[in-house]
Amino acid sequence: LNRAQMRQAQKRLDSLTKPPGSLGKLEEIAVQLAGISGELLPQVDNKYHVVMAGDHGVVEEGVSAFPQQVTTQMVYNFLNGGAAVNVLAEQAGAEVAIVDIGVAQEIEGENLLNRKVKYGTDNLAVGPAMTREEAISSLEVGIEVVEDLIKQGANLIGTGEMGIGNTTSSSAILATSTDLSLEQIVGYGTGIDEAGLEKKKKVIAQALEVNQPQVNDGLDILAKVGGLEIGGMAGVMLGAAAHRVPVIIDGLISGAAALIAHKIEPQVSNYLLPSHQSVEPGHIKIYEALDLEPLLDLEMRLGEGTGAVLSMNLVEAAANIINGMATFSEAGITVED
Amino acid sequence: LNRAQMRQAQKRLDSLTKPPGSLGKLEEIAVQLAGISGELLPQVDNKYHVVMAGDHGVVEEGVSAFPQQVTTQMVYNFLNGGAAVNVLAEQAGAEVAIVDIGVAQEIEGENLLNRKVKYGTDNLAVGPAMTREEAISSLEVGIEVVEDLIKQGANLIGTGEMGIGNTTSSSAILATSTDLSLEQIVGYGTGIDEAGLEKKKKVIAQALEVNQPQVNDGLDILAKVGGLEIGGMAGVMLGAAAHRVPVIIDGLISGAAALIAHKIEPQVSNYLLPSHQSVEPGHIKIYEALDLEPLLDLEMRLGEGTGAVLSMNLVEAAANIINGMATFSEAGITVED
Repeated sequence: LNRAQMRQAQKRLDSLTKPPGSLGKLEEIAVQLAGISGELLPQVDNKYHVVMAGDHGVVEEGVSAFPQQVTTQMVYNFLNGGAAVNVLAEQAGAEVAIVDIGVAQEIEGENLLNRKVKYGTDNLAVGPAMTREEAISSLEVGIEVVEDLIKQGANLIGTGEMGIGNTTSSSAILATSTDLSLEQIVGYGTGIDEAGLEKKKKVIAQALEVNQPQVNDGLDILAKVGGLEIGGMAGVMLGAAAHRVPVIIDGLISGAAALIAHKIEPQVSNYLLPSHQSVEPGHIKIYEALDLEPLLDLEMRLGEGTGAVLSMNLVEAAANIINGMATFSEAGITVED
Repeated sequence: LNRAQMRQAQKRLDSLTKPPGSLGKLEEIAVQLAGISGELLPQVDNKYHVVMAGDHGVVEEGVSAFPQQVTTQMVYNFLNGGAAVNVLAEQAGAEVAIVDIGVAQEIEGENLLNRKVKYGTDNLAVGPAMTREEAISSLEVGIEVVEDLIKQGANLIGTGEMGIGNTTSSSAILATSTDLSLEQIVGYGTGIDEAGLEKKKKVIAQALEVNQPQVNDGLDILAKVGGLEIGGMAGVMLGAAAHRVPVIIDGLISGAAALIAHKIEPQVSNYLLPSHQSVEPGHIKIYEALDLEPLLDLEMRLGEGTGAVLSMNLVEAAANIINGMATFSEAGITVED
């Protein structure tokens, strides 16, 4: 982060026609954007949202309320513009990039980015989800996708995902990365019942026992209990940070990707912006681990990056404040001291 | 509210391609919009934000961090597009209407709605802020302004204000309307210090003692300890509700106007949408009194309706969800049961 530019940004914010600090978190975001971009007047006018789609072998344990083919069906729904994330991205003025990084079925579509690393992960309850090489490939896909968007002028990136079974994988990542118990972490995902929740906890406990992911090795965690779309999002975060472009994290799964990215390169968290707080109980723990605070608490639990896209308006608003407001002297306003 | 249409809206939301309820408060807003408008597919595409400006005689007691002339200077800043509310309204795609309903000085401007009822209120610490007739006039101005906007097609209205000294008046309204103590209600406004806060509490206590506003008479409270811009905003709420158009309340002052409107016509609260939670301690109490929950908590305390305008994107997003998402059957998605 460019600390000198952050101090200049705070100084400018204090000269604008409002009581100092009265725009609260919007001012904090504006300062962070200045630090990330190195620009006193950061621009947020070219927004892209990346949805990574991948399947999870662990669904054969019965941990999800929806069958695996829904991943494929939802990717087609994204491509046709009918999903929540399409509608919300349009409202926020963001383009959506859909990436098949590991869906179990073949998918074709004009606007689909086909970057399949593997036809879904293996069942993490009985062995590693993927090899270390496959995990590296998933990160590389994310880095390449985001670099292409940045070449097209992207100055704000949202992260989202689709993958039936991926709250199980994400909870396993969170359990490995923190001291929290599975009771504190594991939630209902897209809507399993109490018996399903107990099964999900058992499956995660078994996965941790079988795989023994190494707490300080982000790549090891990703390979053993992660997912292809999680690796893809972690790659997006690492790639965006390397190019000094802010990235918005979304819910539990995108947050798990942020934990992986953070283990690989701790500085990445300076380039992450929070969005909403999900209903999933583990999610707030991820924000705490990354020293971030959510901007929205709308009791959402949908995924796709819906929370990230909703927050884009707030980030754009923060940038517009420091760019567009008049100063006290420009407006000829009396300031007592 | 049209309850039948609200049930239909909930049914439609449950048929869309997402786990039922997974968009949380956005779904609640969509249902409320259907109930307000009577339309299954409510439109939010014509947004207007009304800023009511008025002065307060009580500033002669020294209750504000800024001198009275800042009200006038800020109105010119609004007219020139340099204030926070201008920048945020533009980001939200909303038109801004600036109304001089009671500024102490003369103001001229091409885009100013000149509806001055009085050149600022009288000092409420020594007598009523205005007459009952003036209070009625302020409500009428708000009703007329919003009716004009609705004729122009407005389907979402934001409320905001400018008036040095108006957190004092708003806190007096809140103290009259609830059982809360001044300790629980009164805050730092735009930035007074500890001594200023003590003085502000004393002034409000004196105003209540001198005026004895009647708890069940909204008009009496408005006249005795209210403000012209507060009456104007209450009129906007009453007028919008009468035409089945949703209105977003903002911070402490807009909330005080909502309390007045609610005392005049309790059904108005069905047509109010919440926005942010302000730093002012009394603000959350207003939400509780109106049975609303804030959508945003960004630690803001600026006024002007900045929180209302920021929330417009969320309200529009909620409307777009029910209008724009595909159903499970349209998308050909497998639903287990």
